[in-house]
Amino acid sequence: MIMRKNKKITRTRMIFARNLRKFRTIRKLSQEDLAELADLHRTYIGSVERGERNISIDNMERLAKALGLRVLDLVREEPE
Amino acid sequence: MIMRKNKKITRTRMIFARNLRKFRTIRKLSQEDLAELADLHRTYIGSVERGERNISIDNMERLAKALGLRVLDLVREEPE
Repeated sequence: MIMRKNKKITRTRMIFARNLRKFRTIRKLSQEDLAELADLHRTYIGSVERGERNISIDNMERLAKALGLRVLDLVREEPE
Repeated sequence: MIMRKNKKITRTRMIFARNLRKFRTIRKLSQEDLAELADLHRTYIGSVERGERNISIDNMERLAKALGLRVLDLVREEPE
């Protein structure tokens, strides 16, 4: 667990958040672009990328699909 | 999407459900055992294993940890 803004953020949330931002920027998509592709709200994407949301498995899949990835790719921790 | 009991179940839910049951039975744990290890309710474990729950990333992590795994291992699709 990592503390951030007084909220506990689990390890998997942080990995997901980091990967989401990484792949979104690699694809040169804004948060708004990705929101449109995934049919989610732009502010929701922002909060997921900050690890603030306890995102559901269905929304994880929507975001992965919008990026042409599998959920697997978004929860994979990379060697630093 | 797969239809089951008139509910849409996403692909990732089904993969997670199948892997959860597989690893739980490999470890010879009952749903009740796993519920206790993960501090979740036994009926909740059952509904996740039937793909009925839109489980959150934090609960995915609790279940993975209780099984000594990473979330990654529970969303990985195996060759059939």
